[in-house]
Amino acid sequence: MPAYAAPVADMQFLLHRVLKVRDSGLPGHDDLDPDFTGQILTEAGRVASEVLAPLNAVGDRHGCRLDNGVVRTPPGFDAAFRTMKDGGWTALDCDPAYGGQGLPCLMGTAVGEIFVSANMAFNMYQGLTHGAYSAIHAHGTAEQKALYLPPMVRCDWTGTMNLTEPHCGTDLGMLRTRAEPQPDGSWRITGTKIFISAGDHDLAQNIIHLVLARAPGGGEGTRGISLFIVPKVLVNPDGTLGARNAVSVGKIEHKMGIHGNATCVMNYDGATGFLLGDLHKGMRAMFTMMNEARLGVGLQGYAVAAAAYQAAAAYAKDRLQGRAVTGVANPDGPADPLIVHPDIRRALMDQRSLVEGARALTFWGATLIDRARAGDAAAEAAISLLTPVIKGFLTDRGFDCTVQAQQVFGGHGYVEDWGMSQFARDARIAMIYEGANGIQALDLVGRKLAQDGGRAMMAFLETIKAEVRAQAGDDRMAPFAEPLKTASKQLQQAAMFFVAQGMTRPAAALAGSTDFLHLMGHVCLGLMWTRMARAALDALDAGEGDAAFLQAKLATGRYYMARQLPACTMHLARIESGADPVMALPAEAF
Amino acid sequence: MPAYAAPVADMQFLLHRVLKVRDSGLPGHDDLDPDFTGQILTEAGRVASEVLAPLNAVGDRHGCRLDNGVVRTPPGFDAAFRTMKDGGWTALDCDPAYGGQGLPCLMGTAVGEIFVSANMAFNMYQGLTHGAYSAIHAHGTAEQKALYLPPMVRCDWTGTMNLTEPHCGTDLGMLRTRAEPQPDGSWRITGTKIFISAGDHDLAQNIIHLVLARAPGGGEGTRGISLFIVPKVLVNPDGTLGARNAVSVGKIEHKMGIHGNATCVMNYDGATGFLLGDLHKGMRAMFTMMNEARLGVGLQGYAVAAAAYQAAAAYAKDRLQGRAVTGVANPDGPADPLIVHPDIRRALMDQRSLVEGARALTFWGATLIDRARAGDAAAEAAISLLTPVIKGFLTDRGFDCTVQAQQVFGGHGYVEDWGMSQFARDARIAMIYEGANGIQALDLVGRKLAQDGGRAMMAFLETIKAEVRAQAGDDRMAPFAEPLKTASKQLQQAAMFFVAQGMTRPAAALAGSTDFLHLMGHVCLGLMWTRMARAALDALDAGEGDAAFLQAKLATGRYYMARQLPACTMHLARIESGADPVMALPAEAF
Repeated sequence: MPAYAAPVADMQFLLHRVLKVRDSGLPGHDDLDPDFTGQILTEAGRVASEVLAPLNAVGDRHGCRLDNGVVRTPPGFDAAFRTMKDGGWTALDCDPAYGGQGLPCLMGTAVGEIFVSANMAFNMYQGLTHGAYSAIHAHGTAEQKALYLPPMVRCDWTGTMNLTEPHCGTDLGMLRTRAEPQPDGSWRITGTKIFISAGDHDLAQNIIHLVLARAPGGGEGTRGISLFIVPKVLVNPDGTLGARNAVSVGKIEHKMGIHGNATCVMNYDGATGFLLGDLHKGMRAMFTMMNEARLGVGLQGYAVAAAAYQAAAAYAKDRLQGRAVTGVANPDGPADPLIVHPDIRRALMDQRSLVEGARALTFWGATLIDRARAGDAAAEAAISLLTPVIKGFLTDRGFDCTVQAQQVFGGHGYVEDWGMSQFARDARIAMIYEGANGIQALDLVGRKLAQDGGRAMMAFLETIKAEVRAQAGDDRMAPFAEPLKTASKQLQQAAMFFVAQGMTRPAAALAGSTDFLHLMGHVCLGLMWTRMARAALDALDAGEGDAAFLQAKLATGRYYMARQLPACTMHLARIESGADPVMALPAEAF
Repeated sequence: MPAYAAPVADMQFLLHRVLKVRDSGLPGHDDLDPDFTGQILTEAGRVASEVLAPLNAVGDRHGCRLDNGVVRTPPGFDAAFRTMKDGGWTALDCDPAYGGQGLPCLMGTAVGEIFVSANMAFNMYQGLTHGAYSAIHAHGTAEQKALYLPPMVRCDWTGTMNLTEPHCGTDLGMLRTRAEPQPDGSWRITGTKIFISAGDHDLAQNIIHLVLARAPGGGEGTRGISLFIVPKVLVNPDGTLGARNAVSVGKIEHKMGIHGNATCVMNYDGATGFLLGDLHKGMRAMFTMMNEARLGVGLQGYAVAAAAYQAAAAYAKDRLQGRAVTGVANPDGPADPLIVHPDIRRALMDQRSLVEGARALTFWGATLIDRARAGDAAAEAAISLLTPVIKGFLTDRGFDCTVQAQQVFGGHGYVEDWGMSQFARDARIAMIYEGANGIQALDLVGRKLAQDGGRAMMAFLETIKAEVRAQAGDDRMAPFAEPLKTASKQLQQAAMFFVAQGMTRPAAALAGSTDFLHLMGHVCLGLMWTRMARAALDALDAGEGDAAFLQAKLATGRYYMARQLPACTMHLARIESGADPVMALPAEAF
């Protein structure tokens, strides 16, 4: 099974040379000196390599079992979860008022990538808890926060998010789970929820379910929906555990991947719940956590690709097959390693340049979340715009790259022994959950693009222009600045096409939405590569850092600009072909 | 689980309006009138829908088991295999001299698509047998053909191909399985082969393994390799079964998909074998069947996508979620069907236009094989050029489309209940086996393009020019002819770039090989869509055929030309960026 080594050097480069985290002016960020962040990342990497990665295949093979109504996680998950808790990893970026360590979202993101790369299914138990923690932190009363957050920060209790029902996923306006008010101020929750990640398990003493349900008087559609805290075990006012609540697991889903995480059908049979946030404002409460949650899924998309790339690169250097076209490279062996072959190299460079660019984009997104939390409205607008791109583009491309990594192994990639099939099967879910990628494209084109008069998009294009201008006069930056300039003009042209069509022909914009999401994704990664190249050259000019690392960074970036940015031309052409080719066929002809 | 209906109307359109099979001048083709082919396809469709498709999920769930050295296939496979044999389906395009029905490869291909769509893993038992049949038919002695072919045509005995060993797949020059001559003229075969599809099972009385092995005196590398017939059970001269041969199953591989087909490690422990074809010419014997075998894998790529598309289209018409942006489409329901949403429509059109174009290309390829068999050297050159495109492009794109079909189902696509995950897991193998797609790209750019002074490529480009010229004056054909002309010029430009670089910088051509394969794939499908559009318009002009079908064909074709052909610009740009971005990073930096 694949070994995993955390990309500490690359993360340090991003934190300190690209994002310059200590100069950000945000509270607490000036503590983040390279020694401190290096220690955190190295230690997270040790846990990932020694504890989580060895359990990845175990989780895939054993899966979760439902025994007498209780979910059993795969062997070893319990001990590993204790290691995570004892190391304080679950509390890393939580509020110190509830026992958290108070590090920024940026550091939580970096550490999160490491854990997801090592074992995506395992890390979801904590990841879902973090989402529920954020919802209660943002919308809970003082009592609710005091009662629920400390054990959730420690992951003594975990959390879930319950949105989907059998007949509605995207269209939550149809949801049927109902909440009836009780005389004591609590609510009785009745309904069935499906696809509940970490819905039940044996890793924690309690599970705090956050459940969307329809309370009386809220009207039809999404307006009538409220959010409720529904603990698996009811909690006494002193924080001790009380009676078992009327929540049960209907079944565990049999899925393509992430077998180590229990995806449950949850039945609420008059379960006791407590309103979280305002009545009939449940959708709004959910949306406040969405940027963070979707950034976390975008991260999954590239983090699995990162682990798959590591395995593919190692295999390509080890496996002897064929001879280099430019002459024998390994005269003492029966053949040359795969990595001499240009098409293998192309596949590896596709993966590497995507992963490193995606990491930069996700880290940038995390800093925007940190800024937004500190009250920066422009950062809030920027991350709202970028969120569907981070989620949709990075999971689509992350899956493609994972499949390419699997391909490097030939037939050995298709059998389960090498772990590459698992990477592909696991990565696949990230394109679907937390809003399927078509929904991300719709969010981007149908909402975010035009929001506030298109201000966020204009600011994004201005950011690029400034970045391009800043490179003028340095010929070494031309392979970055020129393709970025071209691509960003194409992005602007596509946006203008939507504006021109959107008023009279809304289908024309939506028919191009996925292409627009990918076009913008490439522009984002082009921007990231330009920034990284600039930082690498600055370090080289100053004689700082590891020259081999910095040269590799420049070479990888030039690959992305030369080989990936040409996709923008294709996406623009597709967009400008409009809705007619897409909508011409009548529905009954399908 | 997905229902399946054979695309009989589309196949009849291809056979009779596009390929005009009765006018081909090939022996036996004038019998193929629409009634006759319609009966065959309809009956194949009935077997596929009623017998094979219901077993697809069964095979996936149960897989194959190794019990005391014998492989047990999933429940129901044995009865279904008997149905296939009794219906004469295994003999369809085999030589009447050995009990076959003598239909052309074209009809075997059409029926093959139907069976593969319904149950890919099941159909491989017959598919591998057909490959072994072809090898013995082409290279066997009269005695060998008389002894082995009749039961193989009936599939009373099945066949396998044994190439790969643990340390060598693509690079067969390293293979170690050895053959020692025996005084009676037979050979003792010793070695281990891996990834042997249908390597053992309980569906047939005997299995005829074709094994590549190294006989003394042939020298190093691929030159020293010979091909041997190694029956599981030795065959007496009168055709009755004799002693069990020293062939055993080491294990069954645990794979991502095609669980219903037993992929075996085969151990040959001094097994008795018989030379097939000339000594030390085993590689050449293998290569003579390669066009047909690779066409069969390309077919798998789009046939699984075709089944997945059917399921996705049905789901999109049935599942209610959200409202159409252009106004409520289903006022009596709680929501509109998914198919009203432009991005869902885009995904379905991507799939549909790929599948129909791929079907046309594969059927054309089959007619070229039929022509080549009849001695047409130009057809032989054309199919040799097209084979890596059919295999590589159709399996890459077929997998992408299968993943898109899965995506239409949202979370329901990720759980195993709906069968969409199985389609994606099954389709994945076609990109790998029978020469991984990187090898197809290498074959195309490194061998086929320059073969015979590039004559086949020039002929292909001439075919396109003639097709484009033939549309002049019919404005309705401009949406086809113009993009095809542009794309074919880009293909020519890419080929010229390789010629210019190839002499001095072979890595530059190979760094662009996968992009070239895809560029040529799009041009091929552009050509197919132009031909299909021409045929549809001719039929409409003549007042023949089903107008709704013909109009849908035109609309689907216009989609492909407008939305898919723009990929050619991207592939050309990548190719022309040359080898530098690909090869810049030293191997140790990975």
